[in-house]
Amino acid sequence: MLNVMYNDDNWKFIFPILFNFVMSVIVYFLTVRLIPRIKDMFVKANLYGIDMNKKSGEKVPESLGVVTGCLFLITLFLFIPIPFTNYIFNDINFPHSEFMEFLAALLSICCMLLLGFADDVLDLRWRHKLLLPTIASLPLLMVYYINFNSTLIIVPKPLRSWFGFSVDLWIFYYLYMGMLAVFCTNAINILAGINGLEVGQSLVISISILLFNIIELSGDLWKAHQFSLYFMLPYIATSLGLLKFNWYPAEIFVGDTFCYLSGMTFAVVGIIGHFSKTMLLFFIPQIINFLYSVPQLFQFIPCPRHRLPKYNKKTDKLQISTVVFNKKDIGSLGKFIAWIFRKLNIIKWQEDDHGTVTCNNFTLINFVLIKTGPIKEPTLTLILLLIQVTSLAFLIRYPLASIFYEV
Amino acid sequence: MLNVMYNDDNWKFIFPILFNFVMSVIVYFLTVRLIPRIKDMFVKANLYGIDMNKKSGEKVPESLGVVTGCLFLITLFLFIPIPFTNYIFNDINFPHSEFMEFLAALLSICCMLLLGFADDVLDLRWRHKLLLPTIASLPLLMVYYINFNSTLIIVPKPLRSWFGFSVDLWIFYYLYMGMLAVFCTNAINILAGINGLEVGQSLVISISILLFNIIELSGDLWKAHQFSLYFMLPYIATSLGLLKFNWYPAEIFVGDTFCYLSGMTFAVVGIIGHFSKTMLLFFIPQIINFLYSVPQLFQFIPCPRHRLPKYNKKTDKLQISTVVFNKKDIGSLGKFIAWIFRKLNIIKWQEDDHGTVTCNNFTLINFVLIKTGPIKEPTLTLILLLIQVTSLAFLIRYPLASIFYEV
Repeated sequence: MLNVMYNDDNWKFIFPILFNFVMSVIVYFLTVRLIPRIKDMFVKANLYGIDMNKKSGEKVPESLGVVTGCLFLITLFLFIPIPFTNYIFNDINFPHSEFMEFLAALLSICCMLLLGFADDVLDLRWRHKLLLPTIASLPLLMVYYINFNSTLIIVPKPLRSWFGFSVDLWIFYYLYMGMLAVFCTNAINILAGINGLEVGQSLVISISILLFNIIELSGDLWKAHQFSLYFMLPYIATSLGLLKFNWYPAEIFVGDTFCYLSGMTFAVVGIIGHFSKTMLLFFIPQIINFLYSVPQLFQFIPCPRHRLPKYNKKTDKLQISTVVFNKKDIGSLGKFIAWIFRKLNIIKWQEDDHGTVTCNNFTLINFVLIKTGPIKEPTLTLILLLIQVTSLAFLIRYPLASIFYEV
Repeated sequence: MLNVMYNDDNWKFIFPILFNFVMSVIVYFLTVRLIPRIKDMFVKANLYGIDMNKKSGEKVPESLGVVTGCLFLITLFLFIPIPFTNYIFNDINFPHSEFMEFLAALLSICCMLLLGFADDVLDLRWRHKLLLPTIASLPLLMVYYINFNSTLIIVPKPLRSWFGFSVDLWIFYYLYMGMLAVFCTNAINILAGINGLEVGQSLVISISILLFNIIELSGDLWKAHQFSLYFMLPYIATSLGLLKFNWYPAEIFVGDTFCYLSGMTFAVVGIIGHFSKTMLLFFIPQIINFLYSVPQLFQFIPCPRHRLPKYNKKTDKLQISTVVFNKKDIGSLGKFIAWIFRKLNIIKWQEDDHGTVTCNNFTLINFVLIKTGPIKEPTLTLILLLIQVTSLAFLIRYPLASIFYEV
């Protein structure tokens, strides 16, 4: 019925999106205006970092993501009543479940913004970083349970002879969604460390989601994608404002705050927008970076405290960073992984007669540097963003979908 | 119908309260365990203050309120499903509107926790401190609008010949509720500055609310008061844990974070619990302190940067702090206020032949010190808390209510 009502009157359907778009444009200009005025407060509060890839050694204000995060939240707080004006003024039965989705989404995002900022200020421990996003996503999962509780997934064609047409994942689907929040928040944080990369990749991901939403607006699940649009537009606007100052040479750093905020925003729209599985396809470079990092993250190969690329002052270029260890000191699993990675030609491995090994750190950034050789920082960021663009999920999903699913 | 169902089965009514109580006891012990382990992280992050009322001059970790705030939120996140288990497992029509109240309440509190922490770290400007709580309370007001939208108030008996039995305040009631959030968050922040006072007064207020809720549980609005109980129990537990370390001599400071968190929690339960007018009666000392401060806050009388009482190292006692100015420099309104305050004998005013005035700063703390003379810090805190206890709102409301309303 709702669907018909809206199709009858396209204006009611387009109006909130248009309103959101205008608010997003305004908040972009606010962001661009506010950041230069506010950034000195961060240095004064001891929130700054030294850019390791620059000669100057200046104090760069850190965790400006909290500013865009707040502007993003304020925009959405002010926007909330708009999609519901029709119900409010005409006294039609109020759609409580939709409103609940808004509240739960904002609650989870606000929690992560708080957590991210606390992490930047206090330097939280790893167990907090894994536990707290899970707790922050609880209200969201509960809303999913109340509103949909659909844990059936369609099995891809090639696997149907074993599993049947669909499988009810039951509680495991909730586990998956809870882990999605943890994954998204940390995935962006791991693929980071050069000017503009965190914001750049998040912008590519969010614009991909935006395009995906726009395409799906004509489908049956248009309402879920409209919901996602409401979040993506102001997110993109505030992040664009942030990128302006974080692009090479960075005047500000975005901090863990921004990575947490972004990750949770993506998880939220994925879960409430019913595309939490598709969402993973937008994170292909992050997944590759994570898988490539696993041997170091789990200490099969020694892992130094920082794995950023190395800056060469003379050439003003970045080159791979390495870890040095003795071959005797790594276990058999580490040796086996190293053997496979060398066969696949995805690491740079140098060994002398005494068994001393010099090897690149296992990050996507270093991998690119192996292939390109030393390059300037903005070029490196651009290459990594191009990788993100070319892996664009919906380009893969649509043509490939027919192999796996009926279209 | 709901009411009858619950009365039939008292267990379903008591169970969530009991569960919440047990969680609160656990979170108290967690708080007491966590604070000593985590407090050094705050000093390391440059979040510390020097206690002006002590000889030692040690660095005291600041804004530990963010720790209890997070524990408070986590407790409520984990508690949310409990009052709804009956609906979830028995598939009875889910009470969306009640769940929405939870989400909106948590969203507003979480926003204020973020704002408070940002204020402690970044030292926000006054306009942010007034604007942001208003925005943070928007979702709450919207939920009030959707669920109740009752803006009628019963007129007190003596005024009925003018206004009639009830008045519809319409949008002004929403303005009032929005301002309540701003008032509560700042009221506690203004009556502060000596060990244990911020947490102490908040605990007196919250325990008053708790008793009021328990009394009202037998009334018609029991559901609203049950909701308030869910928030008050873990709030009291975490704040008690905090007081253990903030009591004289304070090992930690609670920060603006705690004042903001507390203020918004009180505003939230007042608004959703339908006792936003009664709520003001719990804030009598804060209101008096605010009114007494007005001449200085609005610069009719000169206002120094800090108005804390003055510490006397020799006697280890606190005495009134003063402001010195020339009588010529204040306007006629300032002179008039000073004249009234002197007639009322509520300020200490010394004037020499040249018109140089030495006057106490207009705070409730200084007022107490005028009456008692110099006293030790913990005694001063205790006196101020006693004032808070004796002004307890529900003691006043119940006997006096019959004069103003039918009982």
